[in-house]
Amino acid sequence: MGAIPKGQEELVAAFREGKIGALARAISRVEEGREEAFSLLETLQAPDADCWRTGITGPPGAGKSTLAAALARAWSEEGRRTALLAVDPSSEVTGGALLGDRIRMASALESDGVFVRSMASRGSLGGLGQAVGAAADLCASFGFHEVLLETVGVGQAETDVASQADLVVVVLHPRSGDGIQAMKAGLLETADLLLVNKSDTQGAEATARDLEGALDLVQDASSRPPVLCCSALDGGGMGEVLGALESLRENLSEGGALEDRRMARSLARAQCMVGDGLRRRAWAEGGLEARTRRLLDEGVLSDRAAGEVLEGALARLAEVPS
Amino acid sequence: MGAIPKGQEELVAAFREGKIGALARAISRVEEGREEAFSLLETLQAPDADCWRTGITGPPGAGKSTLAAALARAWSEEGRRTALLAVDPSSEVTGGALLGDRIRMASALESDGVFVRSMASRGSLGGLGQAVGAAADLCASFGFHEVLLETVGVGQAETDVASQADLVVVVLHPRSGDGIQAMKAGLLETADLLLVNKSDTQGAEATARDLEGALDLVQDASSRPPVLCCSALDGGGMGEVLGALESLRENLSEGGALEDRRMARSLARAQCMVGDGLRRRAWAEGGLEARTRRLLDEGVLSDRAAGEVLEGALARLAEVPS
Repeated sequence: MGAIPKGQEELVAAFREGKIGALARAISRVEEGREEAFSLLETLQAPDADCWRTGITGPPGAGKSTLAAALARAWSEEGRRTALLAVDPSSEVTGGALLGDRIRMASALESDGVFVRSMASRGSLGGLGQAVGAAADLCASFGFHEVLLETVGVGQAETDVASQADLVVVVLHPRSGDGIQAMKAGLLETADLLLVNKSDTQGAEATARDLEGALDLVQDASSRPPVLCCSALDGGGMGEVLGALESLRENLSEGGALEDRRMARSLARAQCMVGDGLRRRAWAEGGLEARTRRLLDEGVLSDRAAGEVLEGALARLAEVPS
Repeated sequence: MGAIPKGQEELVAAFREGKIGALARAISRVEEGREEAFSLLETLQAPDADCWRTGITGPPGAGKSTLAAALARAWSEEGRRTALLAVDPSSEVTGGALLGDRIRMASALESDGVFVRSMASRGSLGGLGQAVGAAADLCASFGFHEVLLETVGVGQAETDVASQADLVVVVLHPRSGDGIQAMKAGLLETADLLLVNKSDTQGAEATARDLEGALDLVQDASSRPPVLCCSALDGGGMGEVLGALESLRENLSEGGALEDRRMARSLARAQCMVGDGLRRRAWAEGGLEARTRRLLDEGVLSDRAAGEVLEGALARLAEVPS
């Protein structure tokens, strides 16, 4: 724990007294990406052995929000304090506002005692992976037992967010081909548990069997993720889902794999922050813009120029410091 | 023009004969981000003085697809060959497939002679800005007069795509607060023309007036973008929209501003490619992962470690080459 950062004594005190408004404000600091957020994190961070982070991912329309809400509600009823971080990069445009169904779902959850927070990456110091990882740290430090990280299914953001979870649940729609598409998109590689949602829909069982078959082709049957059907909306199969998560957690904790995952999580978060920082700052601060301009002025095609500047920059970074 | 890249003679010949399948294949090469795509671009690239690139951007639900379709149809009817590049990062998950309404709209447009292509960034060598810029180059070289770049409203991707247009149209819903949110998200700064769509909805005129008032606060009235109301779905006000675009183009061409914009476009494309390349490759190839691991092993907090590694990398890049 670091010294309490100047001007944040009040926030730190309110946070430690367990005032939920202080948690919300601390997350905002992280999300806004102010430099001071780092010292705040160092001050507030505590070991989170008793806080599980569960990532929920999958293609649009698979029912991720509904599943996240069902899990949050079930854990709350068991007396486990639950936070739901809903990551939606598109909300950058709407200023972080939740829309339509999500608003209704969020207010229902909040009245069940779940802390719900929408997150975008706008202004973040270190990309979405860093911001979400930091927000989850704050929730853990605040005393939550469960943190759900729900994503929206848009590429890199998805991967960055999933990298901050202890376990990743991939949700699919029982639509013909959804599983194959998810596999092509690399979504299944990150899955610890696969759910075919909307099990009341025709074809759910068949989709699950197809998935198992496809996974057996590429993975050892003993190591491939379990595939379950559920209906998050009406609760069907949710008991099995909760049980499967429990077993996965036990396996992770027993073998020491959890420690490895948490180290990987720190690395992924740092990678996200370094990569995002380079993407945003190297162009001007690293002198790459000037180098590119020179090449363009000489008539080199934009992509060629960029390629040369990129390779030069990578070579320079790799030089052993003297 | 470079030499025809090996193994691509057939593709280049078919492209030059005007076979649309060859254009589609060339765009796929660019999108897949294979190294060979660069030489293909150098071979196929031609001056595109007679091809305009119009970016369509705005928050989700504002009617961007409908507006893009209306513009594409109007230009086609004038005999201007039109291509529509619909950029949807979330289609990475669905494997690039267009969904629902978009499929129907695309097939209707194609029967009107419009070339429609959905693009995701997956696998791209240089991020979405580079891929879209390159695809637009290919369309220009193929002989299209109009290229529409339609985005989905998700943060960085939006900015990168807009940077590849000659002119950017921002579409807003006449929803109270949409304009203010768009302003907060920095969307208006990129606008050459602002459209309040769904002008049949109550409040469209009021939204337009609010926008003008807000813009007058921050910009000189003579330099701020025009604000129009339209209804892309039933064609209301589209004549004015087309006229406004025409005037904007004339102003751009006359003052020499177009050349500046096209240089800025090349720079933005290079920036996108260099930034994306650094984000993906510097971690491992630049030795940054190893440096971060050392710090984490010493017990440094993930974000602190990342901050140190990032600053070190920026300093190293900025060193004047010997």
